[in-house]
Amino acid sequence: MMSKKHVPYRVYLEERELPECWYNFRADMPNLSPYLNPATQKPVTPDDMLAIFPMELIQQEMSDERYIPIPEEVRELYRSFRPSPLCRAYGLEKLLDTPARIYYKYEGNNPSGSHKLNTAIPQAYYNKKAGIKRLATETGAGQWGTALSVASQMFGLECTVYMVKVSYQQKPYRKAIMQAYGATVNPSPSPLTQAGRKILERDPNSLGSLGIAISEAVEDAATHDDTNYALGSVLNHVLLHQTIIGLEARKQMEKIDEYPDVVVACCGGGSNFGGIAFPFLHDKIREGKKIELIAAEPAACPTLTKGKFAYDFGDVAQMTPIMEMYTLGHGFIPPGIHAGGLRYHGDSVLVSKAYKDGLIDARAVHQTEVFKAAIQFARTELILPAPESAHAIKVAIDEALKCKETGESKCILFCLSGHGNFDLTAYEEYMAGNLQDYEYPDELLNEGLKTLPKI
Amino acid sequence: MMSKKHVPYRVYLEERELPECWYNFRADMPNLSPYLNPATQKPVTPDDMLAIFPMELIQQEMSDERYIPIPEEVRELYRSFRPSPLCRAYGLEKLLDTPARIYYKYEGNNPSGSHKLNTAIPQAYYNKKAGIKRLATETGAGQWGTALSVASQMFGLECTVYMVKVSYQQKPYRKAIMQAYGATVNPSPSPLTQAGRKILERDPNSLGSLGIAISEAVEDAATHDDTNYALGSVLNHVLLHQTIIGLEARKQMEKIDEYPDVVVACCGGGSNFGGIAFPFLHDKIREGKKIELIAAEPAACPTLTKGKFAYDFGDVAQMTPIMEMYTLGHGFIPPGIHAGGLRYHGDSVLVSKAYKDGLIDARAVHQTEVFKAAIQFARTELILPAPESAHAIKVAIDEALKCKETGESKCILFCLSGHGNFDLTAYEEYMAGNLQDYEYPDELLNEGLKTLPKI
Repeated sequence: MMSKKHVPYRVYLEERELPECWYNFRADMPNLSPYLNPATQKPVTPDDMLAIFPMELIQQEMSDERYIPIPEEVRELYRSFRPSPLCRAYGLEKLLDTPARIYYKYEGNNPSGSHKLNTAIPQAYYNKKAGIKRLATETGAGQWGTALSVASQMFGLECTVYMVKVSYQQKPYRKAIMQAYGATVNPSPSPLTQAGRKILERDPNSLGSLGIAISEAVEDAATHDDTNYALGSVLNHVLLHQTIIGLEARKQMEKIDEYPDVVVACCGGGSNFGGIAFPFLHDKIREGKKIELIAAEPAACPTLTKGKFAYDFGDVAQMTPIMEMYTLGHGFIPPGIHAGGLRYHGDSVLVSKAYKDGLIDARAVHQTEVFKAAIQFARTELILPAPESAHAIKVAIDEALKCKETGESKCILFCLSGHGNFDLTAYEEYMAGNLQDYEYPDELLNEGLKTLPKI
Repeated sequence: MMSKKHVPYRVYLEERELPECWYNFRADMPNLSPYLNPATQKPVTPDDMLAIFPMELIQQEMSDERYIPIPEEVRELYRSFRPSPLCRAYGLEKLLDTPARIYYKYEGNNPSGSHKLNTAIPQAYYNKKAGIKRLATETGAGQWGTALSVASQMFGLECTVYMVKVSYQQKPYRKAIMQAYGATVNPSPSPLTQAGRKILERDPNSLGSLGIAISEAVEDAATHDDTNYALGSVLNHVLLHQTIIGLEARKQMEKIDEYPDVVVACCGGGSNFGGIAFPFLHDKIREGKKIELIAAEPAACPTLTKGKFAYDFGDVAQMTPIMEMYTLGHGFIPPGIHAGGLRYHGDSVLVSKAYKDGLIDARAVHQTEVFKAAIQFARTELILPAPESAHAIKVAIDEALKCKETGESKCILFCLSGHGNFDLTAYEEYMAGNLQDYEYPDELLNEGLKTLPKI
């Protein structure tokens, strides 16, 4: 345990220190169950995925190489916003009066406002290389759609975003920024796909859901030769790309002679958590480092803490591969909490397996306490966090307060995955006292789990 | 003239390289005319200003010292977001196919999203030191109100913001972020001040104006012992604080063995332009450096390019000192362009005098060409600029295109004063083709100039 010493507010890396490879956590996680084809329930082959993904991403999805080189073209574009700063939370430490040393890796300093750009760029790159002209995707909260719009623009690809209709209406700024970056944004359900038309026939006023939007984007990609699909979380290659966060953070900590005792990140599909945690998890598995890794999830969608480890679909329409993961059931519809990025019924296979094996911990937190933490953070650290990221802040604060009780000076690192500039209506509602918490009833869990496929 | 060579995308300074002093341009501008008391038309004395400003800011306002030390408490807080990056605009250069080397200093990476925090922090600091409990201010577009909310929070001061009612209604996100940072936000005109009540009696549905909001904030400060007023531009001490931008930029350029041939910034009240330009103007005046400095202003509010150099009030209600400056007349109401931060009838005394003396240039640009430049920049440099900042981009692009014609490889530096995350309705309107330009009719100018006081 170290005593407090002076480190700068922000620790930078030089551009030349940008990592040259992503870290592939699969290499250190043997015995993963294969994805299953949703139609045949047989293990998915690379060819199964070629209709919607380029081969190089499929290879990354299935690779067991520990380090995968980042193409120079991708590194070149990373350099416009990376390495991202590692910040010492002096203001928050002072407010909490804690002996803990709190650090956060800030991923909001880019046009998408979140870590999503880290994977949007390589996905656009490999698709461009494969001769693809257009990318189709879905977006709920808007972070991912924004990131893919930006990345598509960089490579001269067209980008079609199916945006959950309720977000399309409630978040006009998110729509406008995607358009400013050149994307076509369709409210989903749309009349442009069979999946969309089917829903609209049944309910012309449908406000949509992420499940429907995924179905539309996948269908769009599968039915157009020049178009592929891109996903912003869950899949192995997405988490692979996000490890740039943890790889940089580890280098930055080394520079100031630190190493975290605790690493915290919010966890929806798992790309933000995996991104910062996996490189440290490598150290834990391979080098026996003592380190606690905590996934922070919403109590209203407690995939890891209350879900079941089982094979399930990634989407409502059962078009995606079946994956072994923690899940609340693909039929589970979480309450409308403001951390839209964390409302996913499942979790990445890699994060799920690490949790199953006891390598990581998980905590479920309620949104009012999350927003309270967000305001404390904003007023001391001068960054308004995204509601998703604030889940990590809440857990980091809890850890720091434990240190205050025990007198320990732990080193706590969390990922501040994005800013909250587009989430101010949620802040307004919190400040007006209008937010409510959702206790998760067991009946609902049982309902959701009834939708699990029989494997 | 240098040929292109490799410099990194972003040039950083270490925290220890943060400037220790602000540069006071007054020291190099003798023969400035004094401010006049609006009631007596006699030169303003420090005592005249004590009702609304702390003595240390008044001293800075009137100082002729060339360098004024930045208090350590202020530097400590600057360190949470400064030094700000100097970026090489490789993407934009490529798009324009120009031999010019384009750099921008990015001031949007802080919670207020603009350069305004550079002066909000010292203003809050000196007021706190003087025993003040609360700051009152006005805000139009919202950048300044946000910055002062943040800075007040840092020093435990209350903050009351009079927000022009039309912005209060149209920009709920701006209101919410100020509240998230702890400020009280009143739509102006409000029933809380005599000035506000007077307007409301006449017109209960008044949507307000910056002039009215200033009057309310000044009255609030003048009538409460524990409350002072804070202004976000125009005054000498505000421009003084902003010179941190240019001082850093000069150091950063030195690091990569560069020096600008042209410096561009947008100009409303003048704090952003003065902030980046004055340290280079020092080199021009004192060291004979050849350098062109260009203030970019909206054609719809062409203070420098079409205004008159004369004594005028800073506000509509004639409560501020009378200053010698370029002005369109304090009774001039500019059209509702989307760069709210540039809709000011006057300009800082220091910028005005430099322009009068032929030390700097000015260009007026139209908002549709400004938004076109903004989108070009967003799609190549990955930052969505504030509409105000996009005025500088437009002029920088023009300069770079001139280089393309002449084959010159000039070094062009501009200030990207803030991001456009809160300005997306303006982008939406531009993309929908709904923005219009305003040719400035001479009759309007003559109308405005009729409101000049007789000195």
